[in-house]
Amino acid sequence: MIESAITSQGTTTLETSPTRYIEGRGIRFAYRRLGPSSGTPLVLLQHFSGNIDAWDPAVVNALASDRPVIAFDNAGVGRSTGQTPDNIAAMARDAVDFINLLGLSEVDLLGFSLGGCVAQEIAAEHGRLVRKLILVGTAPKGGEEHLLAVLHEAFSQTDAPDPRLPLFFTKSSASQASGLAFLKRTKLRKDDRDTDNGSAVTDPQAKALITWCATPDPGDTMLRAIRQPTFMASGSDDTMLRANNACAMFKALSNAYLVLYPDSGHGALFQHHKTFVSHVRTFLEA
Amino acid sequence: MIESAITSQGTTTLETSPTRYIEGRGIRFAYRRLGPSSGTPLVLLQHFSGNIDAWDPAVVNALASDRPVIAFDNAGVGRSTGQTPDNIAAMARDAVDFINLLGLSEVDLLGFSLGGCVAQEIAAEHGRLVRKLILVGTAPKGGEEHLLAVLHEAFSQTDAPDPRLPLFFTKSSASQASGLAFLKRTKLRKDDRDTDNGSAVTDPQAKALITWCATPDPGDTMLRAIRQPTFMASGSDDTMLRANNACAMFKALSNAYLVLYPDSGHGALFQHHKTFVSHVRTFLEA
Repeated sequence: MIESAITSQGTTTLETSPTRYIEGRGIRFAYRRLGPSSGTPLVLLQHFSGNIDAWDPAVVNALASDRPVIAFDNAGVGRSTGQTPDNIAAMARDAVDFINLLGLSEVDLLGFSLGGCVAQEIAAEHGRLVRKLILVGTAPKGGEEHLLAVLHEAFSQTDAPDPRLPLFFTKSSASQASGLAFLKRTKLRKDDRDTDNGSAVTDPQAKALITWCATPDPGDTMLRAIRQPTFMASGSDDTMLRANNACAMFKALSNAYLVLYPDSGHGALFQHHKTFVSHVRTFLEA
Repeated sequence: MIESAITSQGTTTLETSPTRYIEGRGIRFAYRRLGPSSGTPLVLLQHFSGNIDAWDPAVVNALASDRPVIAFDNAGVGRSTGQTPDNIAAMARDAVDFINLLGLSEVDLLGFSLGGCVAQEIAAEHGRLVRKLILVGTAPKGGEEHLLAVLHEAFSQTDAPDPRLPLFFTKSSASQASGLAFLKRTKLRKDDRDTDNGSAVTDPQAKALITWCATPDPGDTMLRAIRQPTFMASGSDDTMLRANNACAMFKALSNAYLVLYPDSGHGALFQHHKTFVSHVRTFLEA
């Protein structure tokens, strides 16, 4: 276990904090740690194709104002070494390895999209490691996904400056304006930016997400194994992993809050970042 | 227009504030006004059979910490004079008369259950009067209600100290404990309590609610007439006006947030009062 020499903490932001590295089990994980040093850390699990710099500073920094927040690249992603697995269970094992390497015995998890599938698996399989669970724009095992169709449509929009505009936001002018503001925030960091992901990451990630949704889970055994208080959020018009998924998960989970946001797509948490952060803080502090 | 001489405001609570009266259009309305004198007032619209003292002080006082909050008895209810109408439209007209009598040109509305139906009607018909709308445990026109069945079951539980325990809370020990705490809070006020309602109130109210739900609204014309930002909340296991109603309304409304609370019935706002108040404040302040 080797941690880089950089240990300053506290007032840094996602845009200004140094990227750190920690190594173990053959993988060197890249991460950033924000916020105070004490308190239950909130570990962020990223969406399909995303790296550390794909998180919204408006969300991450606000959450880190009074709790430790850790953004990281799972195995193979961004500047982490290793292979990106093609299944959620292996991604969950890699993430747990990372959390263990940091010496954390209890964390809160925020999983977005693909990261929400990984978060479910961790919460179900590692009950004592996870205190509270936040699932955003995600799907249960056997859920409904439209990944390839939506990706195809997004990438066919050659006039979009970034595929996340059609992927994460609705067609309304308000949502698109929010999308542009979000993209601007994600580009504030100029130095030491994370590495973009290629097909060595996105191909296995796509297979993992599609397989997860194509695998029925009769009796919702995984959701029923999740005993942690859970907060679920979804956009009204998420085209990739529809809000129906969140509604179905809400019914199967024993202790879940569900929030749906207006006029929003897969990136509802970025579009409604102030309200989302307020909801998450209320949930984590309850 | 006659207002009682009592004009003190500010630090009073639902339990300690004087009941005031204001008269016009042949009705003397009983009400209590809490919180600061400036800011958009939040007007509360009460559930079937409820009076001013059926509100939860934990909810009302917390909301009144930084905004004016007005609880009142609509026509015929509690200590207000006049006849309780047997339809939602007339209840909405009476409520608008009351708001006009107070000289308020713009208000926020929080409607619970039957009060949520009245709030929808007011928001749709009086667009400029209503700034923001909060709908809790309610149904749209043509929605699903189980009022009589649930009332019958609640009143047949002779061991329940108050029908609101089976009506508003789930059978779980946590929810029932929350219910007992809620009932205790509603009984903190000893003097100048509101008058309980008899069948002259509950019979027309039941007819109004049942008729509202039995009247289809093709194309959701009423919901589509609501342009105000709307926050909707429902309990996971509301037996009277199921959460399905809130989900259906969320889809038809153009600018709505939906929150569902865990292990809770019709009284989710009382059971989860801290989280509910936080959500409402976040919504009103956005």
